[in-house]
Parts: sequence; C-alpha cells; structure tokens
Amino acid sequence: MTSTITALSQKANNLRIHSIVSTSESGSGHPTTCMSAADIVSVLFFHSMRYDIHHADHPNNDRFVLSKGHAAPLLYAAWAEAGIIEVDDLLNLRKIDSDLEGHPTPRLPWVDVATGSLGQGLSVGLGMAINGKYLDQLDYRVYVLMGDGETAEGGVWEAAALAAHYKLDNLVGIVDVNGIGQSQQTMYGFDVDSYCRRFESFGWNTISIDGHDIGQIISAFTQAHSIKEQPTMIVAKTFKGRGVSFAENVDGWHGKAIPDEQLEQALKELGPVVDVPVPIQAPTVSKLQSQSVSKIEPPKYQIGNEIATRSGYGTALAKLAAANPNVVALDGDTKNSTYAEQILEVDENRYFEMYIAEQNLVGAGIGLSKRGKIPFVSTFAAFFARAYDQIRMSAISQANIKYVGSHCGISIGEDGPSQMGLEDLAMFRAIPDAVVLYPSDPVATERLVAESAQYDGIVFLRTSRPKTSVIYNNKEMFPIGGSKILKSSENDQITVVGAGVTVHEILKAYQELRAAELLIRVIDLYSVKPIDAQTLIKSAESTGNIIITVEDHYPEGGIGEAVQSAVSENGICVHKLAINGIPRSGQPDELLRAFGIDANSIVKKVKAVLSR
Amino acid sequence: MTSTITALSQKANNLRIHSIVSTSESGSGHPTTCMSAADIVSVLFFHSMRYDIHHADHPNNDRFVLSKGHAAPLLYAAWAEAGIIEVDDLLNLRKIDSDLEGHPTPRLPWVDVATGSLGQGLSVGLGMAINGKYLDQLDYRVYVLMGDGETAEGGVWEAAALAAHYKLDNLVGIVDVNGIGQSQQTMYGFDVDSYCRRFESFGWNTISIDGHDIGQIISAFTQAHSIKEQPTMIVAKTFKGRGVSFAENVDGWHGKAIPDEQLEQALKELGPVVDVPVPIQAPTVSKLQSQSVSKIEPPKYQIGNEIATRSGYGTALAKLAAANPNVVALDGDTKNSTYAEQILEVDENRYFEMYIAEQNLVGAGIGLSKRGKIPFVSTFAAFFARAYDQIRMSAISQANIKYVGSHCGISIGEDGPSQMGLEDLAMFRAIPDAVVLYPSDPVATERLVAESAQYDGIVFLRTSRPKTSVIYNNKEMFPIGGSKILKSSENDQITVVGAGVTVHEILKAYQELRAAELLIRVIDLYSVKPIDAQTLIKSAESTGNIIITVEDHYPEGGIGEAVQSAVSENGICVHKLAINGIPRSGQPDELLRAFGIDANSIVKKVKAVLSR
Repeated sequence: MTSTITALSQKANNLRIHSIVSTSESGSGHPTTCMSAADIVSVLFFHSMRYDIHHADHPNNDRFVLSKGHAAPLLYAAWAEAGIIEVDDLLNLRKIDSDLEGHPTPRLPWVDVATGSLGQGLSVGLGMAINGKYLDQLDYRVYVLMGDGETAEGGVWEAAALAAHYKLDNLVGIVDVNGIGQSQQTMYGFDVDSYCRRFESFGWNTISIDGHDIGQIISAFTQAHSIKEQPTMIVAKTFKGRGVSFAENVDGWHGKAIPDEQLEQALKELGPVVDVPVPIQAPTVSKLQSQSVSKIEPPKYQIGNEIATRSGYGTALAKLAAANPNVVALDGDTKNSTYAEQILEVDENRYFEMYIAEQNLVGAGIGLSKRGKIPFVSTFAAFFARAYDQIRMSAISQANIKYVGSHCGISIGEDGPSQMGLEDLAMFRAIPDAVVLYPSDPVATERLVAESAQYDGIVFLRTSRPKTSVIYNNKEMFPIGGSKILKSSENDQITVVGAGVTVHEILKAYQELRAAELLIRVIDLYSVKPIDAQTLIKSAESTGNIIITVEDHYPEGGIGEAVQSAVSENGICVHKLAINGIPRSGQPDELLRAFGIDANSIVKKVKAVLSR
Repeated sequence: MTSTITALSQKANNLRIHSIVSTSESGSGHPTTCMSAADIVSVLFFHSMRYDIHHADHPNNDRFVLSKGHAAPLLYAAWAEAGIIEVDDLLNLRKIDSDLEGHPTPRLPWVDVATGSLGQGLSVGLGMAINGKYLDQLDYRVYVLMGDGETAEGGVWEAAALAAHYKLDNLVGIVDVNGIGQSQQTMYGFDVDSYCRRFESFGWNTISIDGHDIGQIISAFTQAHSIKEQPTMIVAKTFKGRGVSFAENVDGWHGKAIPDEQLEQALKELGPVVDVPVPIQAPTVSKLQSQSVSKIEPPKYQIGNEIATRSGYGTALAKLAAANPNVVALDGDTKNSTYAEQILEVDENRYFEMYIAEQNLVGAGIGLSKRGKIPFVSTFAAFFARAYDQIRMSAISQANIKYVGSHCGISIGEDGPSQMGLEDLAMFRAIPDAVVLYPSDPVATERLVAESAQYDGIVFLRTSRPKTSVIYNNKEMFPIGGSKILKSSENDQITVVGAGVTVHEILKAYQELRAAELLIRVIDLYSVKPIDAQTLIKSAESTGNIIITVEDHYPEGGIGEAVQSAVSENGICVHKLAINGIPRSGQPDELLRAFGIDANSIVKKVKAVLSR
C-alpha cells in the first residue's frame, strides 16, 4: 500500500507539472484548478478506474466526466501518463490545429461529452449510469469530477435528486472543494460539511476527505464501490494551485497560466517528472448483445380525421420502440401531454421519468446517447428554453439525441403565453447541424419520427396541441430536408409557406382565394432545417418572386427567417405572418385570428401583397 | 382565535368554490391544485399578509408570488374575496377579452411577475426580498407559494442557496405538498420530511404542517416572522382536490375542470359561498425616499486606442451607477471578466454576487426590477442560454431588466466553443420588444449602456473579449434603433454590414478594397433590434440592391437574418458571412480567418458577389 501511495503521489505530481507546463506554453488556461484535483485524478486513472487504454470505445470502460471542464489540461496529462497520448503532444494545448482544446470536446476519442459550461456533468453521468444499471446491465462505473463553485448550478441538484431516486450505485461524484471561484471565494468556502449535508439530504452517500491525501482518496473510492442502491458523493477539501507555494490557495490565480518568469520556480518546487509504472485495471470482459432493428409499422390514418400531431408522436414513438431496441424515452412529467407515455405500452423499462427538471432531462439524454441509445426527450416546446445551455452543449458533445417539443405556439389556447413555445424554432435552428422538423399531420409526424431515429445527430420535432385534419396519404414519405407542394398550378400568383397548424389555415385560405379566382401555391415546410431551398426558389420564381410565410412562432428566427435565408441571395421578396408581441389566453381559433395567422389573415395578406 | 379559524376556514371554502366554478365555466384549468392550497392562501390573504387592497402599487405591500402559476384561479378567487375584483368577473377566466389568464401575468396590477413556467418564483421572491432588506430597507415580506413537483427544478435550489447566503428573513416560502404531479405521483410523494431536510441543509428554517389545518398555518407564519437572519420554508402536507370526495387525492384530476355532470355534487359537498368579513392588515406606513438621477459622465477615449467593449461596459456601469441610484448589478461569478465589478468602486451595496447560478441570477434580477430597480445582469453571453426560460418569462413579466453578455463569438479564442456565445442574438431577438445592442467600441458601449437604462423594458447588450480600436468620437450618440454609416461614397458597389468585432474587419477590408479601387459602404449595425431598416434599404438601393452581412454568430437568428427581415419585402439580395459549424480553440485572429469572418474573407466575398 505504501508503494502504491508513493507511486500515485508521484503520478499526481507529474500531472501537476504537465498542467503547468502545457498552460504556460499556450499562455492561457487554468493550471491552479488542475493542481487542486491532481491527486484525485491520479487515484482515479491509475488505481480506481477500470479501462482499456487501447480502446476508448470499450463498452465496459468506466466513464469519467470532467464536469469542471476548465481543468482540461489535467485530463490530457492523465492520458499522457496512461500512455494514451504522447507527453510532447501536451504542448499543443489550445492550438488551432490540436484537438487538445481549452475545454474537452469529443473531437478526442476519450471524451464522451463536451464540458466547460459548468454544472452539467452530473446529469450526463446520470444518463450513463442509468444505461449501465438498467439498460445494458454492464458493471462499468461512472465518475463525475465537479468543482465546488459549480454546485451552485441548479442542474446539479436536479441530477442529485434523480440519481438517488434511481438508486444509481454505479455513479460516483467528486466535489473538488478548493474554495476559490473565478472572481472571489465560493459561497461556502472550505465548509466541506455544507456539501455533505446537502448531498445527504438529497439521498446520497457522502464521504468527506482530504483531497490531497492519496490514502484517503483510495479509501473513499473503495467505500463508494461497496455502497448499494445509492450514489456516492466524495467531498474533497483541496487547495487551488496545490504544490506551488506562490499559487497555493492564493486568490487571483483563477484562469491564469503561470508566467514565464515564475515557471522555473514552480517547476523547481514540484521537482522532475518521474516515470512511475502503475498498472491500470482493465474493464471486466462483457459483451453487449447486438440488437436487431426491425421495420417500423407504417402510419394508419384516414384522410380528414382529426388527430393532433402530438398524438401522432406517441403512436410513432411506440412503433419505433417496438422496432428499435435502442430507442428510449425521457420526459419531464408531461408524458400524458406529449404522449411520450405511449412507449410504456411497448416496454416500460425504456421510459425514464425525469420529473419537472428539464436541464437534467436533457443532460441525462445526452449521457444515454453517449452509451449508444437513441433518446427521445420530450416536454412542452416552451420548456426546452430551460435547458438551452444543455442543448447548446449537446451539439458540441456530438450527441445523437432527439428533442420533441409539444404545445408549440398560440394554438394551445387558454393556458396562455407561459406555456406557448414561440421561440423554440429560433433556439433549435441556431444549433449547428440540428435538424428541425415541424409536421402538420400525424402521417408526417410518424414518418419524421422514423427519419429522426435514422439521422445521427440532433433533431428537434415540434408538435402541436390541437387536433387537425389528416391531410397525407399513409404512403407519403417525408425525407429530412424536403417539403411538400400541396397546391400548385401554372397560374399561381404567389407562394405561401407554412408548417404545422398554419398549413391548415393556408389550405382554408387557398379555398377562399380560389373561389375568388386567385390561385396560390401552397408549401408545407415540414423540414425547417435543413430547408428545401430549391423548391422554395423554384416556386417563388414561378409566382412572381414573392413568398408569404405563415407561422405560429415569433417573427425572429422562425420559418419566415429560415425561408428568407434560403432565398435571400436570389432577390425574392418574403412577407411574413407571425406572432407579434406577447400573446394571451383565449380559444385557439380566437388567438389565430387575433394574432393574424388564421385563414382570413392569410387571404388578406395575399391580396394586400398582390395589390402593391 | 376560534372565530378567526372558523372565518378563515370558510374563506378557504369560498376560494375552493370559486376555483371550481370558474374553471368549470371556462372548461379548462387546474381546480384541484387550487383546492390543495386554498387554506394556505386563505390564511395568507386574510390573516398574515399586510397590503392595501386599494393600492397594488403600495411600496410596502407584502408581496405574493404564485410560483405554482397553474393555481391562478385560486389567486383570482382570493382577490375577489378581498374585494379587489368582482366575484362575477371570475367567470371570465381564460377568456380572450379578460386579463384573468390561465396563468397569472402582470396585465393584472396585482401580479408582479408572470408564472406558469414552474420553479421560477423563489428566485423572483429572492430579488424582491434583497430589495426590501438591503436596498429600500422596507419591512414588507415576500411570500412564494410553490408546488411540490416544481421543487425538482434546479432553479429552486439556486435560489434556496442564495436566500440563505443573503440571510433573507423577509422571505417565506411555502411548498404545497399534495403529492400528485401532472402525469404521476411526484418524486417524493407525501414524504414531507424530505422537503424539510433538503431546505434545512441549504440553510433554511423549515416548518412542517398540515396544510389544511388553519391553526397550524397561522402558527407557521407567526413563527416564520419571528426568525431572524434566515429564510423560512413552510412545508405543508395537503390533498389535491381537497373538499370534493371524488377528486380529493385522486390521480387523473390534474389540469381538468370538473365536468358539468359532476359540478353539482362538488358544490353540494362544499356548501354555499358565505360572506365572511375578515379584516386585512394594512402595510406599515413608510415612504420611499425619492431618488434623484443626475447626468452620466460622457465617454473619454482616444480614437485608435485598443480597448475591449466589455471593459467599456465596466466603465459605463460605474458611471451610470454614480448617476442613477436605482441601478444595481448582479453577476454569476464572472464579474472580473464582464467588468461588472467596476460598480463596486462606486457603491458596493448595489452589487449582488449570484455565484455560478444563472437561472437565479436572472430570476433575482426580475424580482429587483419589479421593486423599481434597474438591474444590470451580466455573465458570458453563452451562459444566458442557461436562463433562457427565465429570460422568456421576463418578457411576459414586463420586466425592466438589462442583460449584458460578454465573451461573444469565436473572437474569445482559446477557451473554445463551450465559452463562445454564438446563439445569443437568436435568443434575445426572439424575445418580444427586447432591444438587442452590439457595440463595436467603448464609446458606443458607454452610450448604449446609458440608452439601456433609459429604455423601459428588456435590453441585451453584447460585449466582446478582445481589445479593438476606439473608432468613435466621444461626442457621438447612439440612439436605440439607429446605425452608423462608417464609409460611404457615391460609387459604392455593395453595402457591408457588421457589428462588434466584425466592424473592425470590415474596415480593414474596406482599405484593401479601396486600394483595388472597389468601394463599399460600411454600416455598423450597433442596434440589432430594433433595426434601422430605412438606412439599410436606402444603402442597399444605392449599392445595386446588394448587402453582405458579417457576424461573429451562427447564421441562424443573428445579424444576417435580422437584416434580411428588414429588407426582404424589397427584393434586396443579402449574402451572409457567419460562423458555420462548431468552432474550436485557437487564437482569435486564427479563428476569424478559419471561420471566414476576417478582413480577407470579406474582401473575397465582396469580389465573389460582385462578379456574379
């Protein structure tokens, strides 16, 4: 044991040296926060964790999430010491041609998820732990290293509640209590008990240790592994800048590389890097059963029937889950409104209730996606705003995750503006490579859910509350990036584009206008992103270079601006009907009228534009 | 005491009857969640709270925040019983021409903030309590009524930590533990202790009661009022649907009005509405000192000096705070990066550290704004994504709040994508009536901060990390909704529009293009919303109907789409340079080049567009 402690202590020292040298070389970064956690990471990577250094993708590797992402140099240093990357490579930290970025991203094969927006790691770890315990039933453990400052983030406590609720004894968190935040002392300073008390009250096993005592760290992990049916939080008192006298526990060193003139002294205090051979535990051998995916049952609707797209989503999710065993669903206590609950009829083990906690809902989904699942994560479209930072990070994390937002727009009616998703298209369109889908009937919904599962990446599917007519034949297909021309003739005078509920209003307007011998081309833009620019441009060109868009969304960032972006280099005029100002309670049809996106408003707009 | 209890009990019964009748009349709503909290609200409104029923705007009225906003009918019923509104008016619940909306909004004078997105009320209450205790030093108390399900929201725990940290003994929370969520039992069911334990561990005084026992409720509030230097959480065990046998503690009644055929039985069980005269305590008399606002010191820079706009913000905030005593600042432990810390030099009592907890940061800001302060709330632009739901609600709440997001875009450099605000313009543009400002130098920054304080509503100010040249004269003014034409001639061939860092790249491109005898018009679009459509259209019309936009933001929802929206009815072609795909770590100039928004990329784009 003494030799183990000595070896791990030297490894920690190596990690500190690498962290200092690499950040000084790059001239920026966070060496002092690396130094506080170096002993913990040494024990984890070279004693407690089980992983195959040659296979980052081994399904039973223990997982490590560096929630305090600004300690990235420490993580890279651990890999270098483990022989995963070259020590020399550490000097490329933060360079544009290196994947050793300022905060970890999955450009590196050993990084599951991007971190750097604090307080998100525990949710991701929770998703991975749920997978290990309940789905793949593998014995890997999930370790999440957090800073003390980031526990102020509410998302941490959402995850804390859920991890205890799901009895995740395969989840181990560590809080690195170095007491110093970015701009001042943290809220609790070195009050280690305050962390223990809070996690205990949330149902966790907690262990308080000196985070620089290798023996205590080893014991803590050993104890954590012995606890059943409960997650463990190790609360480690540490010092920022540990090991270098002028930086240790000294304020003002956050996010600063040690300048050249002080580097020599720092390295002198730490001594040389010493090659310490330490065995790394391999993961237990285990094989994931290969899962066979079968064909999804096609839609079965009758044209003209009244069915909400959110209901179509429930049907589609159940069919998809029956066909694909990797599909799982999560919802934030809205499953009877989003219809996610329909998966329960197929397999109740593939639904995870995340309660009213959307940040963790999304974070857990990201974690599940990183263990090979295809999570369908649903709530009201409006409430995805609660998790927009996590959604943003899910893109940097290259997650394969599907967001389903119901109750979009004013068409929900009486519940009023707090429940209406009216900025969700803007949110999701601004996520790089995200697909944004918005079906107008249940046939389209079912097809798009199937398409979503096929697409490797982020998809947002926007569903509506009210019942609307089935307008598509069951055999109709809806490829991502496409659109549907619903009405077309050689004499069309204008192109009118909608999606979701407004498609139905446009079709009503079409009838009225046709009666007045005014023909319009009608496009259902079910794929808002990627957008079918070719069809839009071609249609506009044959209808006088004019498009009107109609959307149940605020004017900014929605369908109108998506269409403008698609056609704006072609000098096509785009006129928008959208929701202006904060809406209010009322009946759906009253609201569509009052906010100017009903059939009558469309008729008026078409006439006004044509008479210009 | 007995007669008080009897009276309050009858009042509670009246509230239940009103809640049932009004929701049944509207055919939707949440009567059962009103019934669980009816006794609590009865005691609050008719015994414990002090307010002037004739003056919603009395500065020393106790404040009530209905965090469980779906219990709106109960709140409206309490007003009716207090004589604030007519009982008959309750029958207009949820109608389009009534302000008695499905969830409360400040269209009603007695509602401070909109609720309905759960788990936000405690932060708002915290902001109001901070104002009472530390700023206005009034003795009003703030009561926040929460549902049990919503305590799963992390934002609640952010507020819990801060309220204890700031020793807010004027803040009283109530958790209505009715055990039933929307789609199933809550995570903790009737485990009242679990709520007490958790709030206690966060530093609160807690009191556990039977929420249907009027005597216990009265005692709890009395005890809460006696506690010093600590907020109190009253955890009340209740039954959803209390008082109506077929709905009481029965699953499946969430969000359902009692149907006509069962209404009679429900009303029979509750008995008639009885007129009970109950005295309402008046607020203690107190006068807010009127605060005089003086003139702000003008900018003092030298053209050509290199100063970051975030630094300009710090200077401006300090000057503004010196001139206007209502200005306060909040930040989430980034004050040394956003430069919000400069207010400390003027008045350390008007800065509130909110630590790394952005949801509460924004929620507390909303609360402060509702007590007459002008809060400047700052963090990295990227991290406002963490509070987008609160920001969305701040608009419905009609808050007068200023969001300042620093470190926007790839120009931050080595820290990498997690720290780069690249969707913030999309986020804030989609907020109705929000002003979105994006200065390119410190003169513009100072002027725009002053303008922000003048504007009554939401403002987002986007600042940049890198030092850039001062380009404006100190006397230059920057009205909201304006723009600056920086280069203009009669021979301009194209209009190039930027803001922030890209203005400097466009100016460099201008020099290079001019050397090649190609003139461009250069516009600094410092006001992204409202947008100076007139100048854009006029410029485009005199430069061949072509605009190129250059922005350090994703293509969706940013400057390019804002410009397109402004000119799209005029058939003007808009070409966009923006950040495509997830960026990475690197030096700022390397990144501007790699992602195609540097001077060289602009030169190329201008030439390419003109050669089409």
